[in-house]
Amino acid sequence: MTSSAPPKKFINEPENAVSEFISGLLRQYPNKLQKLQNHNVILSTNINYDKVTILSGGGSGHEPSHAGWIGEGMLTGAILGGIFASPSVASILAAIRAVTPDPSSGIKGKGCLLIVKNYTGDRLNFGLAEEIAHNEGRNVKMIVVADDAALPREKGVTGARGVAGTVLVHKIAGAAAKRGDSLEEVVQLASDMAKNVKSLGVALSAVTIPGATSINDRLDEKTIEIGMGIHGEAGLQKSCLKSADELASIMIQTILDFGIEEGEEKTIVPTFNKGDDLAVLVNNLGGTSNFEMSILANSVVKQLESETHGSCSVSRLLVGSFMTSFDMQGASVSIVSLSKSNHLVDLLDDETDAIAWQAVDIMKGTREMKELPEVAAPKNKAIDYSSVPISDFDAETVNKVVKAVCKSLIDAEPLLTKYDIIVGDGDCGMTMERGAKEILKRLEEEQLGSSPIPFFESLAVAVSASMGGTSGILLEILFRKMSSYLNEQTSINAESLKLAFVEGVNAVSFYGGATKGSRTMMDALVPAEEEILKGSNFDVIVKAVNDGAQSTASMTSANAGRSNYLSEEDLKNTPDPGAIAVGLVFSAIQGAL
Amino acid sequence: MTSSAPPKKFINEPENAVSEFISGLLRQYPNKLQKLQNHNVILSTNINYDKVTILSGGGSGHEPSHAGWIGEGMLTGAILGGIFASPSVASILAAIRAVTPDPSSGIKGKGCLLIVKNYTGDRLNFGLAEEIAHNEGRNVKMIVVADDAALPREKGVTGARGVAGTVLVHKIAGAAAKRGDSLEEVVQLASDMAKNVKSLGVALSAVTIPGATSINDRLDEKTIEIGMGIHGEAGLQKSCLKSADELASIMIQTILDFGIEEGEEKTIVPTFNKGDDLAVLVNNLGGTSNFEMSILANSVVKQLESETHGSCSVSRLLVGSFMTSFDMQGASVSIVSLSKSNHLVDLLDDETDAIAWQAVDIMKGTREMKELPEVAAPKNKAIDYSSVPISDFDAETVNKVVKAVCKSLIDAEPLLTKYDIIVGDGDCGMTMERGAKEILKRLEEEQLGSSPIPFFESLAVAVSASMGGTSGILLEILFRKMSSYLNEQTSINAESLKLAFVEGVNAVSFYGGATKGSRTMMDALVPAEEEILKGSNFDVIVKAVNDGAQSTASMTSANAGRSNYLSEEDLKNTPDPGAIAVGLVFSAIQGAL
Repeated sequence: MTSSAPPKKFINEPENAVSEFISGLLRQYPNKLQKLQNHNVILSTNINYDKVTILSGGGSGHEPSHAGWIGEGMLTGAILGGIFASPSVASILAAIRAVTPDPSSGIKGKGCLLIVKNYTGDRLNFGLAEEIAHNEGRNVKMIVVADDAALPREKGVTGARGVAGTVLVHKIAGAAAKRGDSLEEVVQLASDMAKNVKSLGVALSAVTIPGATSINDRLDEKTIEIGMGIHGEAGLQKSCLKSADELASIMIQTILDFGIEEGEEKTIVPTFNKGDDLAVLVNNLGGTSNFEMSILANSVVKQLESETHGSCSVSRLLVGSFMTSFDMQGASVSIVSLSKSNHLVDLLDDETDAIAWQAVDIMKGTREMKELPEVAAPKNKAIDYSSVPISDFDAETVNKVVKAVCKSLIDAEPLLTKYDIIVGDGDCGMTMERGAKEILKRLEEEQLGSSPIPFFESLAVAVSASMGGTSGILLEILFRKMSSYLNEQTSINAESLKLAFVEGVNAVSFYGGATKGSRTMMDALVPAEEEILKGSNFDVIVKAVNDGAQSTASMTSANAGRSNYLSEEDLKNTPDPGAIAVGLVFSAIQGAL
Repeated sequence: MTSSAPPKKFINEPENAVSEFISGLLRQYPNKLQKLQNHNVILSTNINYDKVTILSGGGSGHEPSHAGWIGEGMLTGAILGGIFASPSVASILAAIRAVTPDPSSGIKGKGCLLIVKNYTGDRLNFGLAEEIAHNEGRNVKMIVVADDAALPREKGVTGARGVAGTVLVHKIAGAAAKRGDSLEEVVQLASDMAKNVKSLGVALSAVTIPGATSINDRLDEKTIEIGMGIHGEAGLQKSCLKSADELASIMIQTILDFGIEEGEEKTIVPTFNKGDDLAVLVNNLGGTSNFEMSILANSVVKQLESETHGSCSVSRLLVGSFMTSFDMQGASVSIVSLSKSNHLVDLLDDETDAIAWQAVDIMKGTREMKELPEVAAPKNKAIDYSSVPISDFDAETVNKVVKAVCKSLIDAEPLLTKYDIIVGDGDCGMTMERGAKEILKRLEEEQLGSSPIPFFESLAVAVSASMGGTSGILLEILFRKMSSYLNEQTSINAESLKLAFVEGVNAVSFYGGATKGSRTMMDALVPAEEEILKGSNFDVIVKAVNDGAQSTASMTSANAGRSNYLSEEDLKNTPDPGAIAVGLVFSAIQGAL
């Protein structure tokens, strides 16, 4: 433990953390959950003595365990201790009293099961509460879950800790209770799951709890720990970082080798056999990203299905946060053979409205990805555009205009580069030059088409193939939009060509997000659009475009594009090169016409 | 960025991370999800052209966004880029083609909506794909979500990023599509949510992505950042660590002040008004514990309900992981006024089977905790035990035995202490002495009772009140169990007293977890139990107990209790003091009888 600043956590006073956690959870589920007065006990709002009631609990810091499992078909309530500390006998007893009928009332009830993880504090406190409740005439039983395969069996009872497999025990017990089983039956079924499920965790980081005055530095930046307990207890071994595949393999093999105890003689048999149908729980220890959890789950399933680990099938796969260790980076794997425990399958699959339970996508056999074939891009059809009457677009003029525009942009490369070095990343001039040269080349090879719809689409393809970067995509969008707009018209003439341009500018604004005043090419394009919509003649339009482009020189801040992160000083007196390029294009068109 | 060891993550090769993530997710949901061939695109297995199809996507690393929202009533599919990188135009286009009918097929379909977060790369790539798809004759529209209130409006479009509020836009769009709305209607409703929801995040740690060769040390151990983006982009301000209440207050106030744009003039009005009914999403940025998330949610709701923030009511509260930034420690709050957007409420509440959506516990008015009154402990009744015939338990003998036992334990304190200093924590002698003195005191005050049932319960109460520690709880369990066993008998005699002891020992073994050979008091208690069950006479029993106690001296390892963590060398030749104490008790009983 290194003394340091207190760990960064969302808390207020550490001593109020558990009660504020409870308030938060109850605020989230006001109709489903209630608090037991005077105790850190959360109960279902639906307590039914005609079914076996199920309580679990233990230290806080393992959320969603245990309160997250409250719901029909899982727990009736959860008793919360302090962070990583066992709850008091008084609170456990109060919870038992709340979920069993008053013995003097004459109501019999089906009794209550306590599900306890194998930690001495929990065993003793729950055990004593059970005895006291029993002496009061309440029907209570307790089972202990010790699913951790981290420590060798010779370490005995204090070694085999209760970890994530406990959640599956909750599930079995709750489902059996829901269908009306007796307390003895529920105990038997839950015990069967407790006996058969085995778990192993890997910690990538140690855990520091709120209010701690020191950071837990048990693991340095290169070291992980296989089998670390859910309170940060020592595990099987420390290790260097390994790949997800390797870690999955170690976890599976350790669980397999640990085995389960069968029969009166407690013979150790493998946890699962070749070809078994398995339920697998891949548990986030708290601080691991969901992204990594899926990668790890993939590694686990892939290997269980492989011959190395016996070509098993994983018909039930749960991935997520079940039994955490606060915000510890790490994960655990729990495995139970459904082939061995066929009588538990219906209970596992039974629906529950427990808050944190996830719907399981059951699949028999290998869990292979479904793949949908890709839809092929439509073939370039020889479209007959002759059905659309076209005027004001003659090939010769278009050729002349294109050449003039491209020449102008190529000549302007040094100027645009100079501006862009000051207010951008310096590539504007060369990007424009590349686009212009590509268009010229395609013009000479007669690839641009002589009808406006394919012409603008060809320009889009040309800039896409040559320019790159944001400006390339923006110009591609401009030309594509012009083409698609024209494609929707019943006739094409000067008016619809202008409107196609307006549509294109709007698309560039919408997708690019900039508008007039953003200090981008939009400061030249938008004035063109405005004048077109006003019906101005082309000379007026060209003047507006160039005025707009020049106006960027006096804009002292940018709110989009390349200049967004520069200061007022950086921007002063230099126009936006993209806007200047647009001005050059319009002037070149004017000159050519 | 500090150069350092690679971050500890569950991955294999970084370049395969996204495709392995997809495999893992599809292995978890093989019936619900499918992959699009050749692309990092995940689709629902249920694609229905008769409803508007909804696509979302963006960089990976925000899980469960976006694929986690696939399901009926939310998304039809998600397009995944690399970690924090926009997906390619080709993949977006392939996804659009997969969820819209072939234009040449004659099937019309309702069209497709793209929901895009406001990042330039996403806008442009989705936008261009939309244009191309549109040109192919597909009916596609796109909306952009920019709910982040972190940067001032003057920073313009590149400032207002799309963050967790996007999930609520998915929800509205999906629900509208599900009920059969047209594409235009879906666009309108989704845009209404996009306009009205505002979000703000707080990062406690920076984020480092898999494969990075440097650790991101943007935030030192004392610094947090308010408004950091979901890719770790700069936020509103850095700050020292603050309490959950303070952070909740800052987030709420910033969201409120940021406001929303209303009308054609885009007048800024507050995000919500006094007394409004709100939907609030408290989003885990990835690495925050569930425990803290509830505390923060509690702070947020408490303050929204307070007069300071306008006595609002939070009728919908969602808490969990919605839009993460890999495993960043931090959280964001998103708020939308349902009073302003009443037409969205049914869509928000509509059921969906999307994988990661959580059932919302709707509550009108203040979210106060329900509290169940505690059931009082049963009063000590003056039980008439005279109905149970008792033999072999006369008060005088019992008095004599109790005195002898207690004297023996008090005298043995130095011996027990000596042993426990070697093999335990040194408190065994004094703990036993305290218990013995308390029992003697109660005997003298005639508080022990003269009938076996209250007698053993009185012993339980006496050790509970005086001894403390594990041994106190274990002896309390022993005596309580003896009392409760006897309470269930129809008559009490020497035989049932012996069997009560056997039951008590079994309970101590069950709750304490130790058995013979564990190097605990069980090594003396179990031989007693065995001889009793064999019908041996008391002298034989006493010998077996003492032999068992002495046998612990040669046990070279312990697997339960205080000696579990000591080495063979530490344990050699010293018996377990708890077992020795049991031997002394039996010898004392023998001497007194």
